[in-house]
Amino acid sequence: MPYRAPVDDYQFIFDHVVGFGQVTSTDRFAEAGEDVATAIMTEAGRMCEEVLAPLQRAGDLTPAHLDNGVVRTSPGFAEGYRAIAEGGWVSISADPKHGGMGLPMTLTTAVNEMMSAACLSLQLSPLMTQGQIEALEHHASEEIKALYLPKLVSGEWCGTMNLTEAQAGSDVGALRTKAEPNGDGTYAITGQKIYISWGDNDFAENICHLVLARLPDAPKGTKGISLFMVPKFIPEADGTPGDPNTLKVVSLEHKMGLHGSPTCVMSYEGATGWLVGEENDGMRAMFTMMNNARLGVGGQGIGVAEGAYQQALAYAQDRTQGRALMTGGTGTILDHADVRRMLLEMKADVFAARSIALACAVAIDMETATDSQDWSARAALLTPIAKAFGTDVGIDVANTGVQVHGGMGFIEETGAAQFVRDVRVTAIYEGTNGIQAMDLVARKMADGGEAMNALLDEIEEQAEGARGSLPDLAEPVWQASETLRETVDWMVGQSDLNDRFAGAVPFLRAFARVLGGHYHLAAAIAEGGDGRRSRLARFYIERLLPEHTGLCAHATAGAEGLYSLAPEDFAA
Amino acid sequence: MPYRAPVDDYQFIFDHVVGFGQVTSTDRFAEAGEDVATAIMTEAGRMCEEVLAPLQRAGDLTPAHLDNGVVRTSPGFAEGYRAIAEGGWVSISADPKHGGMGLPMTLTTAVNEMMSAACLSLQLSPLMTQGQIEALEHHASEEIKALYLPKLVSGEWCGTMNLTEAQAGSDVGALRTKAEPNGDGTYAITGQKIYISWGDNDFAENICHLVLARLPDAPKGTKGISLFMVPKFIPEADGTPGDPNTLKVVSLEHKMGLHGSPTCVMSYEGATGWLVGEENDGMRAMFTMMNNARLGVGGQGIGVAEGAYQQALAYAQDRTQGRALMTGGTGTILDHADVRRMLLEMKADVFAARSIALACAVAIDMETATDSQDWSARAALLTPIAKAFGTDVGIDVANTGVQVHGGMGFIEETGAAQFVRDVRVTAIYEGTNGIQAMDLVARKMADGGEAMNALLDEIEEQAEGARGSLPDLAEPVWQASETLRETVDWMVGQSDLNDRFAGAVPFLRAFARVLGGHYHLAAAIAEGGDGRRSRLARFYIERLLPEHTGLCAHATAGAEGLYSLAPEDFAA
Repeated sequence: MPYRAPVDDYQFIFDHVVGFGQVTSTDRFAEAGEDVATAIMTEAGRMCEEVLAPLQRAGDLTPAHLDNGVVRTSPGFAEGYRAIAEGGWVSISADPKHGGMGLPMTLTTAVNEMMSAACLSLQLSPLMTQGQIEALEHHASEEIKALYLPKLVSGEWCGTMNLTEAQAGSDVGALRTKAEPNGDGTYAITGQKIYISWGDNDFAENICHLVLARLPDAPKGTKGISLFMVPKFIPEADGTPGDPNTLKVVSLEHKMGLHGSPTCVMSYEGATGWLVGEENDGMRAMFTMMNNARLGVGGQGIGVAEGAYQQALAYAQDRTQGRALMTGGTGTILDHADVRRMLLEMKADVFAARSIALACAVAIDMETATDSQDWSARAALLTPIAKAFGTDVGIDVANTGVQVHGGMGFIEETGAAQFVRDVRVTAIYEGTNGIQAMDLVARKMADGGEAMNALLDEIEEQAEGARGSLPDLAEPVWQASETLRETVDWMVGQSDLNDRFAGAVPFLRAFARVLGGHYHLAAAIAEGGDGRRSRLARFYIERLLPEHTGLCAHATAGAEGLYSLAPEDFAA
Repeated sequence: MPYRAPVDDYQFIFDHVVGFGQVTSTDRFAEAGEDVATAIMTEAGRMCEEVLAPLQRAGDLTPAHLDNGVVRTSPGFAEGYRAIAEGGWVSISADPKHGGMGLPMTLTTAVNEMMSAACLSLQLSPLMTQGQIEALEHHASEEIKALYLPKLVSGEWCGTMNLTEAQAGSDVGALRTKAEPNGDGTYAITGQKIYISWGDNDFAENICHLVLARLPDAPKGTKGISLFMVPKFIPEADGTPGDPNTLKVVSLEHKMGLHGSPTCVMSYEGATGWLVGEENDGMRAMFTMMNNARLGVGGQGIGVAEGAYQQALAYAQDRTQGRALMTGGTGTILDHADVRRMLLEMKADVFAARSIALACAVAIDMETATDSQDWSARAALLTPIAKAFGTDVGIDVANTGVQVHGGMGFIEETGAAQFVRDVRVTAIYEGTNGIQAMDLVARKMADGGEAMNALLDEIEEQAEGARGSLPDLAEPVWQASETLRETVDWMVGQSDLNDRFAGAVPFLRAFARVLGGHYHLAAAIAEGGDGRRSRLARFYIERLLPEHTGLCAHATAGAEGLYSLAPEDFAA
């Protein structure tokens, strides 16, 4: 797959859509000016194009496998990982104190997206490590930080997240893995964890597992969960990997896609672990890690969408078929109206999802730089939307990419089908998209809709400003925002949370649709309404934004109708 | 996969939704009364449950493969095929003169759907044979009929369709395969065909290829295409397979799914063929075959959707997770509002798509029985909708089925992912769904919208009749029909076909959404508004039907915006 890093698009969105200038105007990120950002993205983009993209198929064709208890990775993955680590792409935003670049999450988000587009299954490894770095920076003791962070930041060691157990998936609080004090400050961790992405590999010196477990007599549910660092090899004081810990990979899953990424069943058998954060306070640390990872997973969806789009476009520009119905003069299927519709849907949704993710990253950076409650609320609000919409777009765009290819799309050699298979899990892991939507209508509305309304105010302010110059783009965005505001009001007015949950997924989608309109309008405004981005904005606003009305109707239908069917009615 | 044949649902739709009674009131189908229909569906359903469903995984795990030029099929497929043939399920609607049952297409449609749900990759073989039988019945000479039909009808021989060539996919007219007269009434067929589903197998005595080819000096494009019967073994006069023909399977495709179905590259090397129909009139015969197959492929999507729904429901009724947020008292994830939303979307869309397909089949039967132009127009109108919406529903429902499973959905052993992989091609083959939509807004509107408006009249008549008793269901359906009518008017008013093509896919989807509302309303009326089908209808009408407004806006946006982007704007 030839992949071209869309650096210009990030740069445009930084400058004209999500206000990255606010970030570089802070003291904290003053060094991340335009030159630095461009240099980072260009350099990372080249690595993605030249080193990672050629690994995409290899990961699919030669899956990671278990060989005498050790994971053997796909051909070229070790070299690919080394390029990521040596480029510093694991730790763009990590604290310079431990070797990171200390640059904004906005840059990390762009680079992560490019790596996802080029080789999703390999990119998942550094994404997990990034989350671990963030969790340790915020919650670990100085000793653990000093011992682990330099190795994780350099990429010599890799990090994993161990939450899920067979009976504890979306309901993390149901987990049973035990942590018993050894009396020397360490703990003995015993239990089995499933779906552990990159639970082992053959290219890192050490694998650092962050494991959720219960102390003896811990309270039930999420309030009794603690977080532990459980390394594959117990580090010596000088940071060299020492004795093997009592943990092992039991098996790898046989998955629909993402074959290059080993998904492990892990067994901890009295393994030595160190507490991270306070006792019974593991969920807080986990959420630090997970929020980071959620934005990252949204970016995975967007990256795959970009890759699928580029491949479909290349096919459309090469394929000749059905001349009699052609309009446009390229002599390829790009001349067909329906092929253009498909490609523009793909492109317009990539832009919308990318802008949402980068706006979320900007909010995170502003929160970091200013400690502002408003930015914190904005980041919290945008995270589930960035995750769910980004991955939905990944799935939809990859599917449309297959369709553009016609019969060739169903043939594995083409590569279009792999995007569909690989990206499917992104709507499931790090909290299913249903969980994201429930988070959006519950926790993210606990402020009575204040953060949402503040965002809608901004949307309407921009639309009002453009009413004179771009009325046919600005007016529908303003109207859509009003419809969404009524939907937010309805949601806030429901005292029974289940009435919100009943419409959570369509609500999130409607919110994303409106945000997409807002960011497309920003692009059109930046161009003065005349240019290719304005034409894409018009496509989106005229043809995709209207989807929000149906979604808002669905969002406000309430729970009663869902429970009017008895369980036996479902089967009949 | 345990599969339960939804015979009750077909029966209900026959009796209360699509008016199957009209069919059995005709002389032609007088024998297909309720008892016969129920017996057929019950018997076929049992075969699907007991014989075919257990083959589903085997086809995926042990794909058909090429062994010294011969296709070896997946374990158990030969026995499965024999059960289909011996049950008579290849030829429910074939002419009794050649051994068929002579029963309505409506029954064939229901049985085909069940076979698709149980084992899609195997079901594709008899589906191809059915199309061939229909093409021969309508277009072949008496000699060919007498020689081939009894063998095809009994299932001893299988049929294939050979249209596509590397440079001729959606544009069939671009094909190059040559047919040269041998001087003895036969033709020498030379060329390569791709994507030939079930191009060979190891369980039929003979494989009968219907091949599109060009005679010497034939006109260009579709007007110069003729149809030939090219058997694998040249039959003796008594119907025993004789000498091998000069044709071969070059290779099998490695596909995203449908591994049990061998997709062949076929090479014809001066193979002996017999003309079917008139010279240069092959497209007409091919359309007979294709229209049948299009409805059949729509049924494949619906069948897979049913299978995926049943599996997701079984999982949801077994899995416990997230008790704290549960409402409803089953103690399983069926208590979660979002899980119910997903399952009800699946179930409501299966009902909508199934009703559309069966309404199409009823129209075909009425056309056959009465030679009525109106029924012919109705069948022609519903065919592309049944195909495209049925397969879109297959893809969407299979994807939602994965989501209901959470992480388990991505693991191949579960079987949920196989539905996604298998069904994906149904939106592509037998005319991509884009082609279906273009057919709908061009050929199916060549009457100035007459057939569509007649259908909308029926929709509104039913809705008006229910306004008193079920106002909150009837009113939105009536309104939606009016919105769709305006959209039809807009389409008819476009003199440039490309303006229709620009919105063809959302138009088809909007049409299906409104039809779904109509049929759900019919179900609610039949129950007097009180029952599980009425509750499902309410779900659909309140939550899914509103999608049509956004789709109609998209449908009427015109072509100009699609062509305002230059080819280089797509890449940037």
